[in-house]
Amino acid sequence: MSAEEASAGTEVSVVGKEEGEEQQVVNPWEVSAGKGGIDYDKLVDQFGCQRLDDALVARVERLTARPPHCFLRRGLFFAHRDLNEILDLYERGERFYLYTGRGPSSEALHLGHLIPFMFTKYLQDAFKVPLVIQLTDDEKFLWKNLTVEESKRLARENAKDIIACGFDVERTFIFSDFNYVGGAFYENMVKVARCVTYNKVVGIFGFSPEDHIGKISFPPVQAVPSFPSSFPHLFSGNDQLRCLIPCAIDQDPYFRMTRDVAPRIGYQKPSLIESRFFPALQGENTKMSASDPNSAIYVTDSVKEIKTKVNKYAFSGGQDSIELHRKLGANLDVDVPIKYLNFFLEDDNELEHIKKEYKEGRMLTGEVKQRLVTVLSELVARHQRARAQVTEEMVDAFMAVRPLPNMFG
Amino acid sequence: MSAEEASAGTEVSVVGKEEGEEQQVVNPWEVSAGKGGIDYDKLVDQFGCQRLDDALVARVERLTARPPHCFLRRGLFFAHRDLNEILDLYERGERFYLYTGRGPSSEALHLGHLIPFMFTKYLQDAFKVPLVIQLTDDEKFLWKNLTVEESKRLARENAKDIIACGFDVERTFIFSDFNYVGGAFYENMVKVARCVTYNKVVGIFGFSPEDHIGKISFPPVQAVPSFPSSFPHLFSGNDQLRCLIPCAIDQDPYFRMTRDVAPRIGYQKPSLIESRFFPALQGENTKMSASDPNSAIYVTDSVKEIKTKVNKYAFSGGQDSIELHRKLGANLDVDVPIKYLNFFLEDDNELEHIKKEYKEGRMLTGEVKQRLVTVLSELVARHQRARAQVTEEMVDAFMAVRPLPNMFG
Repeated sequence: MSAEEASAGTEVSVVGKEEGEEQQVVNPWEVSAGKGGIDYDKLVDQFGCQRLDDALVARVERLTARPPHCFLRRGLFFAHRDLNEILDLYERGERFYLYTGRGPSSEALHLGHLIPFMFTKYLQDAFKVPLVIQLTDDEKFLWKNLTVEESKRLARENAKDIIACGFDVERTFIFSDFNYVGGAFYENMVKVARCVTYNKVVGIFGFSPEDHIGKISFPPVQAVPSFPSSFPHLFSGNDQLRCLIPCAIDQDPYFRMTRDVAPRIGYQKPSLIESRFFPALQGENTKMSASDPNSAIYVTDSVKEIKTKVNKYAFSGGQDSIELHRKLGANLDVDVPIKYLNFFLEDDNELEHIKKEYKEGRMLTGEVKQRLVTVLSELVARHQRARAQVTEEMVDAFMAVRPLPNMFG
Repeated sequence: MSAEEASAGTEVSVVGKEEGEEQQVVNPWEVSAGKGGIDYDKLVDQFGCQRLDDALVARVERLTARPPHCFLRRGLFFAHRDLNEILDLYERGERFYLYTGRGPSSEALHLGHLIPFMFTKYLQDAFKVPLVIQLTDDEKFLWKNLTVEESKRLARENAKDIIACGFDVERTFIFSDFNYVGGAFYENMVKVARCVTYNKVVGIFGFSPEDHIGKISFPPVQAVPSFPSSFPHLFSGNDQLRCLIPCAIDQDPYFRMTRDVAPRIGYQKPSLIESRFFPALQGENTKMSASDPNSAIYVTDSVKEIKTKVNKYAFSGGQDSIELHRKLGANLDVDVPIKYLNFFLEDDNELEHIKKEYKEGRMLTGEVKQRLVTVLSELVARHQRARAQVTEEMVDAFMAVRPLPNMFG
């Protein structure tokens, strides 16, 4: 891995410079595709991560003795770094921990935000391991025009949505940077910072000299939850415990940097398991945007809103007339309802049936959208019910800096 | 002040580019003079600070109803920023707090390190105000080849020397960054970082793109003790309390940056009172260096070591032969023993007498050095006795994060 990473680590994630092709830009703050949507193959090669193949999925299934999550069996989590090493140690009876997070920039989450948390919950349940969830309120303060207080408030509100995903309080520590940075965590931040030059972060993240130093200072903050010594209340005396990070592929630059630094400061490199982006209603070319409410389904949307958004905005791969559709069928590669069902319709047989019927023109866009509205409405209603059950006391419980005596139990 | 600062804030502190002249470089990590020693006048003009004149010294004397410290009446603290505003508010019966600090890069302090602490103790006693002392163990980890543990150990050892200067535990909070960064302090760090571009820190501190981001991240850490909200256990509800910073002039870049940012985040600008450098035994052209033991008198030196160092290394302004000396007298402008006595011989009359006799050739270098050895030996012995009294419990007491209910009493 090191050679790959060394070469990948010094380039900004911009690919596709051939004639007539638009540039694909993927970094933690910007995702924009070329004409044909995100080229994930190029991204894997350029970032230097590994493809998550069927053999690895089968190995996860065997080790956890449960069906792999549909995100995994359908290739939505499609890349990794050293996942095999995590499985090796798990097979030997050793343990690891999970780390994921969220930048709390908006009140309400959209469905794309839920993906890593739904998947992380599956991993926690399947492997029975502890989990740390970082809420980067400091990052959002630095990048958005928010006050510290508003960033902290959003972090807490988002924590409620995260808790509603069903995490186990006995195994889960949620923290906000503004509240938790300090002590061993700050020591690790400073250790990482000493190993990364300005030129290096410019190469990885594309900062400019007119950017403020808060941006330049931030990458170590997202790096250090990868190291168990950042959490002495959880992992004291277990500084070599391995860490697995489920995240979307746009977060890879942080962890490329982290993996580069880790051995230089005596720590283990974190492993990663990385997802594609959940598409906007308008299609695959961008991530959903919190600033365009019609680009996404929010967890706060009503059934009526979901219906309207899906019917009005979800990009269809069907044909312009019923006659033409019956004859030619739908183009599934660009059809958003099918992409959404691919994430959220759990029944593999039904999904295959819909894809086949739709592709061959026997099912119409309206029928596929109707099924999607039902699936999303159920998902959102389930989330809203769970969210309504989350009390301030539960948030305090998840966010308390405390030992988790049964976290591997 | 703002216009001055705006122009000064974007230039590295390098002056003296006329033909044949060496460059004078003054920043927190490098002090090197041109041929004629540090040009303090140029520095004041270039940094945009104010000269500390006799009228201001007289005003301090009047307001505190005690003789001004000899560092003040002899112009060793020679520059300031908005000291007059601090005196205005003090005259109105309002209060302020003091902030000073040290980068703990060595086990033993030399006499130059004691200067700001001796002076700060005088200010604390004279104005009866609280004091925060920052030990920048993170800075030393970032700039020197130390471990985190060693940096923290040195911070604690240095705290003992600082406590030995006689600070009042009822009014003094000493903290190390590795132990204290977090919470409100971290919030202020991030607020400051958002206001300072990379170009700006390059202009102020002279960083290069090959420098690690730890250096670029550090200036906000030294900035935020200037803001009372960084210490909620001391100043909660008193966010506009003014701060006065006694320091050597090489620290001015940090606070130029801090003063530039303060109004943009709703805070008061800190005021400063700034000293010249305490010269190396070899002369005025450099600061003393912890890495050359013969450049400085350490607080751990024995009487014998002091005697040897002064006699062997202290640069003399006397003549080469007794005959010539009797005839021409000493050049006090370059004479290190006189400079040291200027700092540490408290009796103004005796000092004037020695300078006159020496300048006119009636006193010899050996005699002046002998007097200096006595003065320094007493100072160092007094410090060693006080240092020996400092227990671990006392260090804990000064460094405890606690309210100081009588800090203005």
